[in-house]
This record gives sequence, structure tokens and C-alpha cells, in this order.
Amino acid sequence: MGKRIVIALGGNALGNNLPEQMVAVKQTAKAIADLIEEGHEVVIAHGNGPQVGMIQAAMTELTRSDPEKYIPCPLSVCVAMSQGYIGYDLQNSLREELLDRGIRKGVSTVLTQVEVDPADPAFQNPTKPIGSFMTKEEAEKMVAERGYQVMEDAGRGYRRVVASPRPQSIVEIESIRDMVDAGLVVIACGGGGIPVFTTEGHHLKGAAAVVDKDFASCVLAQQLDADCLVILTAVEKVAVNFGKPDQTWLDSLTPDQARVYMDEGQFAPGSMLPKVQAAVQFAESKPGRSALITLLEKARDGIAGKTGTVIVQ
Amino acid sequence: MGKRIVIALGGNALGNNLPEQMVAVKQTAKAIADLIEEGHEVVIAHGNGPQVGMIQAAMTELTRSDPEKYIPCPLSVCVAMSQGYIGYDLQNSLREELLDRGIRKGVSTVLTQVEVDPADPAFQNPTKPIGSFMTKEEAEKMVAERGYQVMEDAGRGYRRVVASPRPQSIVEIESIRDMVDAGLVVIACGGGGIPVFTTEGHHLKGAAAVVDKDFASCVLAQQLDADCLVILTAVEKVAVNFGKPDQTWLDSLTPDQARVYMDEGQFAPGSMLPKVQAAVQFAESKPGRSALITLLEKARDGIAGKTGTVIVQ
Repeated sequence: MGKRIVIALGGNALGNNLPEQMVAVKQTAKAIADLIEEGHEVVIAHGNGPQVGMIQAAMTELTRSDPEKYIPCPLSVCVAMSQGYIGYDLQNSLREELLDRGIRKGVSTVLTQVEVDPADPAFQNPTKPIGSFMTKEEAEKMVAERGYQVMEDAGRGYRRVVASPRPQSIVEIESIRDMVDAGLVVIACGGGGIPVFTTEGHHLKGAAAVVDKDFASCVLAQQLDADCLVILTAVEKVAVNFGKPDQTWLDSLTPDQARVYMDEGQFAPGSMLPKVQAAVQFAESKPGRSALITLLEKARDGIAGKTGTVIVQ
Repeated sequence: MGKRIVIALGGNALGNNLPEQMVAVKQTAKAIADLIEEGHEVVIAHGNGPQVGMIQAAMTELTRSDPEKYIPCPLSVCVAMSQGYIGYDLQNSLREELLDRGIRKGVSTVLTQVEVDPADPAFQNPTKPIGSFMTKEEAEKMVAERGYQVMEDAGRGYRRVVASPRPQSIVEIESIRDMVDAGLVVIACGGGGIPVFTTEGHHLKGAAAVVDKDFASCVLAQQLDADCLVILTAVEKVAVNFGKPDQTWLDSLTPDQARVYMDEGQFAPGSMLPKVQAAVQFAESKPGRSALITLLEKARDGIAGKTGTVIVQ
């Protein structure tokens, strides 16, 4: 019996540039097609770190080349562009892989926005570096002219830092749900979604922020009433005492156990920690829901209960 | 009784840059919301001339800034990015306008590809200039290194020219149809769609081309079994003997009459001609189908039969 599954794809599933992306998405497509072939309903979310950085760098070069003509491009617009940039390759690879297996199923990318809370404490403490490196002078100019926050990055220069607020809800959830219900494979929440918040009236304003794709996938999975959230990453299982002599791989984890390990500082912030947090949030959101953390190429085995770390209440 | 309507938005509905776009889409949203308020099902397609030019220029600047790191970005990928760039603003303006009127209706942008025929004669005769101006030396380098075709543009420098082949079908038609059937407002075929053709197996390869948004809208309208194709432009009606003493505005036109006028050279190529051609193609595709050519702000009156030029069999 098929499950409704939301997959969160990490950076390694997409590559760091266009030639890498075109190769990486082929492997990614095979892993996802495996799940579809087994009768699961699949919705795909993905990160966009290298891609949105590249697009932001391109828009910055454009402004540099002709500052009279081109104003700086807001980060939210760069995220929107990155959804097109990645979705195009990803949907075609998956479509091709499905047709090669004789599966006729539409694959579509939906431009997706996520609502964030303007009062989110993350806005007071931006930590996520984005875009290209700047000299001290360039950085000071950006701070003065555009109110950017910048950070010195390990002697390599200065970079803009933005907030990474928690996603509250998916603006286009109705479209995504209708498409999934109609049997389509949907790519949504690219780059964690375009972060927006509601201002006066019904206006949605883009936020100078990036949303973590694992948290966005978690909200997407909750709003779609998915059975399973699959977070694909660079390790087959979650470990405690990672890299130490008593390192232990975990087959399963309850939210309470996960919290103990998180309090012990077992999971690296910005790496495994947000994945475990998102997995716990999903597993606790409704009885019967489970989250799986594993390698891309182990997704099918993980769903079949053969590997990976399952977080379930 | 509501009609199913595909709207083709011209460049003036979107502005030439981001600040202009943010203003222009508000007016555009009002005109489209008028039709939705009257009970019509609306699907929106749009051009992307200035936007894809800007994105291509940005990607070219990025490659110039670091040729080791960044390869030139294919035009098809730039079109994909432009769909995100425009769709984001357009869907939000429309969503806001609808909510301001108390209409709760999802508005979504679908990344859209259109199939073109690699044997289309347009590929032998590229005529559509895109991207930024180049010096003679830069242009010769592009020709040698990347096989670009270039054209000298009225003393202002050289530009790349690409083909504008006729769209054959919409790859994501199933998704778009499901969304429209579910009552959503859909933005699709941005920039005429990402042009692709089928190579060996099921692989879709991006074409270095741009598809005319009026023809793409026509194919979209046919495949969605729409009642009406609305082509919005800078004039309220189509005229014959345009700009001459005996200029005559046309209220309606049969395909046969249109063909006589086209043979007389009444309509400017690259301007009114493709609009009339697309309108004729749609009107002839099935009994009962009609096309309307009018101003953005006259869309409602046009659908009500009060103005514009109607092309119907």
C-alpha cells in the first residue's frame, strides 16, 4: 500500500554548478523513481545553497556592470529564480527516468513561497552566509547603502549574512495538494521556499532570508498530511558519539530520545541538528507519522525498513 | 456562465525591470481579477523579453567575472529562471487583488516547457535578438567558441540572435489541466515556455531558442480546451490601413478575412502579425472557439463583447 512521502533533497543530490547538476539529478531521479515505482505518492523539496549563491553573484555582477540601469536584486527574487533553475533539470531527469521505466506520470515544479514570522528571533541574529566574497570596503559600502549584515569569513573576505527563520506555512499548499491528489509528482519548496511575510492587508513581502529546506519539508509534509518525511543526506544513519571510538549508528529514535541526544550536543548545528529537529517535529505532529534520515541511494531500503534512522513516536 | 480563458500578457503588462514590474503587475492583477470575479476560469501566459535579456546579461557578467568557475548559462535555463522571476510577482499581485475582493482562490506558477520541432525552419533563420550588446570582437569570439549566430543591430553593436520556432505542445499540460479543473488560477508558459525537443529515448533537451508567447498561449488554450484566447496588447482593436487616412478599426474578423489582410501585409511582423496568426489558429481549431485582441484594461469589456477585435469562425 503506497505511502504519501515528502522527500527533502540535500545539496549532494543537485551538485554545485550546472554541469554537476545535470549529472547529479540523474542519480537523484533513479532513487526517487524507485519510490514511485513501488506505488508511493512523492513530493520533492530541495535545497539551493550553491545555486542561489551563484544567481545572487550573477545579479550582483550585473548591478556592478551598470549600476544606473540595474538595481540590486532582492534575495527572495533570487530564490524564485533558483526554483526555476533547479526544477527544470530535476523534473526532466525524473520524467525521463519514469518514462524509461514505462511509468507515465506528470512531473511538475510549482513556484513555492513559505510564510515566516517577522518576529522570528532569527531576524535578530542572521547567521547564514550567502553570495560572493567582498572586500572590507565593499562590505562596508553594502552595510551603509543597503543595510546588509556582513560577517568576516575565516580570512577569505566578507560575506553577507541573512536570517534563517522557521517556516510557518506553505502559501501554495492548495495547488500542491490538488496536484498530488491528481496523481502528479510535484517539486515544491525549492531552496526551502521563497520566504515571505504578510504586511498590511493581504500583501506578501519577500524577506531577506533563507529557509532551511528540512524545516520547510517538514511543514510541507504536515500540511499535505504525509505519512513519511524522508530527509536525504550524506550518511546512511544518524550516529551518536560521531567520529569517536564509541560511535553508534541509530536504527530508530523516539522524539524523547532525540531530545536527550540534542541536549547532549550530539548533532552538529547547521548539519545533522536541523535534520533531527525537523524529523522530530514531523514525527510528533500526528500519530502514525514517521521521519527517515538516510542516504539518497538508500531511500527505497529505508522506506522498506531495512536501513536509515527512523524517527517515530 | 463562466468561460475557460487563456490570457496572453504582453510586455507592457510586466514592465522592463524589477521596480517597473512591481508597479505594472498591480494593474495587470486588477484586469485579470475582473475576469475571475465574473466567474471565468483563467490561465495566464506571459512574455519575458526584457526579463530573460536581463537574466542572460547577468549570467554573462558572471562568466566574464570568473570564466574558470562559471560556464555560460544555456538560454533555456535563463527562460526557466525568468518564469520564477516573473511568476513570483505576478502570482502575489493577483493573490492580493483577489483577497482584497474577498475571493479565496489559489494562484500558482507552474514551470512550463514547450516542445518544438528540431526541423522547424526557424532554426535555419534565427531572427530574435536577445541579451546584451557586444563589440565586434566579443561577437566574433562567441561565434567561434560557442557557435552563436550574431547580428549587427543598427549601429548599437552586435547581439546574439536565436530562432523562434513554433510551439508544438505543452509538456506540463496535465498538471496545468488538473490545477485549472481544481479551481486554481494558473500562471504557465512564462516567456512562451522553455523550448525543448525530444532527443533519443525520452530525453528533453533545451533549445537555444525563444518561443513567441502568443503562439504558446494558443497551443495552451487548445490543449486546455479553452473557450477563448485573449491576447492583450497596446491597442484596443486591430486596425487595417494602420496609421493611414483610411485606417479602420475592426470589431470582428473571420479567419478567412484575416488571411486576406495578412496577404495584403496589413499587420506588422513581430508585432500584430503573430497575434493575428495565433488568434486565427485558435479560432479555427474547433467550432465555438474565439480569440480576442484588445488592451489589458479592456479585457472585461472585450469578453463581454463591448470592445476589442474578436476573431471567430
